[in-house]
Amino acid sequence: MTQHPERILSIQSHVVFGYVGGKAAVFPLQCLGYDVDVVNTVNFSNHAGYGRSGGSKATAEELNSIFQSMEENELLLPSRLLTGYIPGAEALTAVEKLASKLKHVRPNMIYLLDPVMGDAGRLYVAADVIPVYRNMLPLATIITPNWFEVEVLTEVKLKDFASVQRALAILHKRYHVPDVVISSIPATHWLWESLPSAIKPPSDSGFLLCLSSSVPDTHSPSDSNSLSVVHAQVVPLIPGYFSGVGDLFAALLLGHFNPIETPKCPESTALSIAASAALAKTHALLEITHEQAMKLPSEERLPSDDELDRVDPLRRTRRMRGRELALIQGQDIIRGKEVDKARVLKLWDGFWDSFDGNLDA
Amino acid sequence: MTQHPERILSIQSHVVFGYVGGKAAVFPLQCLGYDVDVVNTVNFSNHAGYGRSGGSKATAEELNSIFQSMEENELLLPSRLLTGYIPGAEALTAVEKLASKLKHVRPNMIYLLDPVMGDAGRLYVAADVIPVYRNMLPLATIITPNWFEVEVLTEVKLKDFASVQRALAILHKRYHVPDVVISSIPATHWLWESLPSAIKPPSDSGFLLCLSSSVPDTHSPSDSNSLSVVHAQVVPLIPGYFSGVGDLFAALLLGHFNPIETPKCPESTALSIAASAALAKTHALLEITHEQAMKLPSEERLPSDDELDRVDPLRRTRRMRGRELALIQGQDIIRGKEVDKARVLKLWDGFWDSFDGNLDA
Repeated sequence: MTQHPERILSIQSHVVFGYVGGKAAVFPLQCLGYDVDVVNTVNFSNHAGYGRSGGSKATAEELNSIFQSMEENELLLPSRLLTGYIPGAEALTAVEKLASKLKHVRPNMIYLLDPVMGDAGRLYVAADVIPVYRNMLPLATIITPNWFEVEVLTEVKLKDFASVQRALAILHKRYHVPDVVISSIPATHWLWESLPSAIKPPSDSGFLLCLSSSVPDTHSPSDSNSLSVVHAQVVPLIPGYFSGVGDLFAALLLGHFNPIETPKCPESTALSIAASAALAKTHALLEITHEQAMKLPSEERLPSDDELDRVDPLRRTRRMRGRELALIQGQDIIRGKEVDKARVLKLWDGFWDSFDGNLDA
Repeated sequence: MTQHPERILSIQSHVVFGYVGGKAAVFPLQCLGYDVDVVNTVNFSNHAGYGRSGGSKATAEELNSIFQSMEENELLLPSRLLTGYIPGAEALTAVEKLASKLKHVRPNMIYLLDPVMGDAGRLYVAADVIPVYRNMLPLATIITPNWFEVEVLTEVKLKDFASVQRALAILHKRYHVPDVVISSIPATHWLWESLPSAIKPPSDSGFLLCLSSSVPDTHSPSDSNSLSVVHAQVVPLIPGYFSGVGDLFAALLLGHFNPIETPKCPESTALSIAASAALAKTHALLEITHEQAMKLPSEERLPSDDELDRVDPLRRTRRMRGRELALIQGQDIIRGKEVDKARVLKLWDGFWDSFDGNLDA
């Protein structure tokens, strides 16, 4: 019998069909033994990648009405908080107030904030959420921005290794975030060159990098240049675009994060251990998803072509449908206790050695 | 690896905290290997039993917008449909139209309609949903009304064995429902007296009855008095009120219903086999829930007392909170392959022998 005393409050999007937002996060967390309280920030038919969707967004008033009733009924009991896609600054501000209140009542609450704002150089939320997210960062235990979201939050263009150091330093020092994980970092020559040999992949294409950076509870003064303990690992890139991967990864990361039970050890941190499990399981689930997609009839896996997709929107729809995460078919992976050794994040010794300590470029 | 080709569209309520409606149904179905498309008819903080709740209901327009986008995007692909609590006749009519459309396109779709209207003599939906539900009955493969809902749908007061026969006959003959399961039937002396000896419990209190009634695909003309094959079983009553039990039972019933894979056999029907699994698992989950509740501090399990509950609403809230279904802690039960033999529904031979064949009292 699974026994778990922990309760997670998850606040993110809901889609009827497919697996993004809460649909990608809640089932895995339940499989891992957590009671999950589920707030839906939108109720849509499907994710935005399909091109068309029906449904509605929850207003800030609706969210506040839910939070207030939960408070009155003594149902705000999470030991962990997970927030993802929240459309618009008003709704996000409602969540910020709630997170602040929860953190005040229970300072040890573990809060994973996924600052879902955009990807690959493009914002897909209104720009007025950015300052709200910056305000929320000090409340978070863990954040999981993607490469683009790191740039948006820190206002540092990631163009060389020094800029990566600077951006991470800003998240840790200016915004006081103890734990940062950036998964799915695309291959760039300069970043690959910087990788320690134990991690460096055989080629600088065909891989994605996952990086964790954790500020130790106590800091030895002799080690003042080292802002955090950094770990990293690469995974083979699976071709094509999958939706909900970041939401799934964030949920698995939170589900596997156990700072109290983690023994002190120079080779790993509670964060790197959780990131290793999340990386291994997410990658294994993507492999199953990819295999299933390959078995579909060819008309359901036509490659992206903006012009053809415009003429026949169902081309895009069918491609999206065939690439929904195979969470149900892969649920044994989610429950698995063993982590694939090839996915274990390794210590990035000397990550901070060359850092100039300057937060402003 | 779990492999299942089936997809269930579930349309029912959503609560942030606790397990009723979709929160009681979706996770079990996912554990059983189904991809579940989840439409939330309401988004509330908690179930109505707490006395206070926040959030909002989906309008008929919002539901139609979701259904329309799903249709345009070719995402209306369920092989099974599950509908539960739908507040108001307008929203229910939207669901009726969808069910009718789906059934037209895919006549073999299995539709479990849970006509959630009330309990113990009291309606908790607007009365204008009743005729809509009656219209929907011919679309259903399985219905799971409770004792009170049987009375509401059939307009037959269940006061003796003949009235039970008449009500069931109305559901099968007038409304053309092939499969009916009534779970949690309270003990009444006359009903207990009618039970065959193989099922009859040692006492006429402390038990609930579960009854399944299935119209065979082909009817032998010699057997014209027998409208259906009836099975039944009793389970020990667990004291106190639990919310979401009917929603959980209906989900497990649908999840375990496999008419194509079921061998023809006089001792069981596909329906009785599914009802046995649903009954066994629901009862085992209630036992865990009850055990957990018993371990709570005494102030979180104070008995119902209308007067004291009015003075201090948190008395009621805490009692409700302590009795939320232990679905997460009991998830191994949901996945279990073996069914407790004591819960297997047994053939009720001669159920129809005394029936006068008259649908109007």
